[in-house]
Amino acid sequence: MNSTLNFLVAGMESQLAEVARRFDDETRSDLACVSSLTKHVARFRGKMLRPMLVLLAGRACGSINDIHLTIATVVEMVHMATLVHDDVLDDAELRRRGATINHLKGNETAVLLGDYLISHSYHLCSGLDDQFAARIIASTTNRVCEGELLQLDNRGNLDLTEETYITIIERKTAALIAASAMLGAHFSGATPKVVEALRFYGEAIGIAFQIQDDVLDLIGDTNEVGKPLGNDVEQVKLTLPLIHFLKTAPTEHRQLLRSLLKGDEPDRAEKVRNLISPSGSIEYARAVAEKYVERAITSLRVLEKSEAKDALEEAARFITKRSN
Amino acid sequence: MNSTLNFLVAGMESQLAEVARRFDDETRSDLACVSSLTKHVARFRGKMLRPMLVLLAGRACGSINDIHLTIATVVEMVHMATLVHDDVLDDAELRRRGATINHLKGNETAVLLGDYLISHSYHLCSGLDDQFAARIIASTTNRVCEGELLQLDNRGNLDLTEETYITIIERKTAALIAASAMLGAHFSGATPKVVEALRFYGEAIGIAFQIQDDVLDLIGDTNEVGKPLGNDVEQVKLTLPLIHFLKTAPTEHRQLLRSLLKGDEPDRAEKVRNLISPSGSIEYARAVAEKYVERAITSLRVLEKSEAKDALEEAARFITKRSN
Repeated sequence: MNSTLNFLVAGMESQLAEVARRFDDETRSDLACVSSLTKHVARFRGKMLRPMLVLLAGRACGSINDIHLTIATVVEMVHMATLVHDDVLDDAELRRRGATINHLKGNETAVLLGDYLISHSYHLCSGLDDQFAARIIASTTNRVCEGELLQLDNRGNLDLTEETYITIIERKTAALIAASAMLGAHFSGATPKVVEALRFYGEAIGIAFQIQDDVLDLIGDTNEVGKPLGNDVEQVKLTLPLIHFLKTAPTEHRQLLRSLLKGDEPDRAEKVRNLISPSGSIEYARAVAEKYVERAITSLRVLEKSEAKDALEEAARFITKRSN
Repeated sequence: MNSTLNFLVAGMESQLAEVARRFDDETRSDLACVSSLTKHVARFRGKMLRPMLVLLAGRACGSINDIHLTIATVVEMVHMATLVHDDVLDDAELRRRGATINHLKGNETAVLLGDYLISHSYHLCSGLDDQFAARIIASTTNRVCEGELLQLDNRGNLDLTEETYITIIERKTAALIAASAMLGAHFSGATPKVVEALRFYGEAIGIAFQIQDDVLDLIGDTNEVGKPLGNDVEQVKLTLPLIHFLKTAPTEHRQLLRSLLKGDEPDRAEKVRNLISPSGSIEYARAVAEKYVERAITSLRVLEKSEAKDALEEAARFITKRSN
């Protein structure tokens, strides 16, 4: 568990431990070669943000039941599957200070392990009494894949617009966070209006979360984040600060950035960072993230006052404050 | 459609066309970059063996309804997803005489497109009224992933046993064929005993199918099969003829095979083929496949006589006769 989110966990420790237990039970296999992989993956379990949102949204709208615990396990498993495949796409070697599966066992194993996790997440869903959660989860993973494919299609596109960038992160990141919050609310018997408010809340903090992630990849501290940074520049994935910079900076600065992104200097991530840092484009990206956080908090107005509601508000504010 | 299976299609043309239509409808996206990929993948649609089995099993046990058409689409989509990821794992360039997605667009796109297809297959399942199909499909994909992981774990293992080989192919290939046949029967209202007989039939022909596939990879005709062969030898994936050869051939022949498999001569697939061909190990593998075909046909005894039952029998016999 990441210490920075500990303030949210109070009162949820035993439920989150149950989620971890269900995760392990579901992904255990009679084949030793499979179980050793899922054991390794358990080490990547980090902030457990998505399970927490299921539980907090559930509490904010009523009480937690067994379905919440299953859904919380499902969203974490889907998330873990996307991490494992993301590491293949990014050729990443480190994740939460541990070696990635692709680095340790090769891309083939990582592809199959991601498939195994996604399959088990649907399997867990299919054990529920009705199809509601399965429908939401499957539509969500449809959108996650679309966001990832759109992002891939725009690698190297120096003319990426802010609008398309938001579409990418809304699908690849925010959709699953939105699903977590709305399913939590739904299974506590919330009205459709409240379920929609929680979906909106999740989507908005999801967008803010990804903008902050992208800012950290650009200017964060490698030691604090726990993995190598500068990945987006290396892969010429334009993120909000760069998009803003390429639209607003003086012509010669824009040209310099374009040629850095098109080139292959080994220290170009560092050079881009030095070029962008004093420009105001980081501040712009942070302000956009803040705007989404405020929208998220506003959408919580439909909820009555409760500790869980306060925690959802704190979670939203934390998104843009975090440094890892 | 592969011409060699045309004899099975009689009377199913319009239903198979509806399956293809549902496949296209489900995988269409508002994003052009996604739709162009799913359009390309549609070209890989080959024998449509799995959808046919859903329909034939359904007919053999009663009549076809809308759920059969959905299930037929789902199993084809799962199959297509595994093909796309398999091509990444095998670094394959050709599939049914067309370029693979990984060859055309890179491994990253192929990984995500496979994810997109698997997500949509669960999404289609989640639209059904009850969870029965979703549970079977998700348990099946769990097993498919396990089979693939076990196979990967045994790449380069020259001591692979026939038992483990059968476990691998039962999970990676036969499980989905078994699910196709049993779901077809179930949704025509078959009794549990008949559903189990159809599952067994599917599993047995699935094992025979994969043994034949592996024999073709070893000694088939590249032009007939439509893709490069010798893949298993290149990747040191032991298949039934090699396992048998390494157990039964004269010592010096075994040693020669082991050193060919451990080496990296560019024409080693050709050399292995020449070594194995006269040995009787191909015939052994074919005999094992035939044994599974006979078991499959025997299990059909629970069905009353019908055209669909005859077609299921013909399909089983065809498995080991095919040359592509």
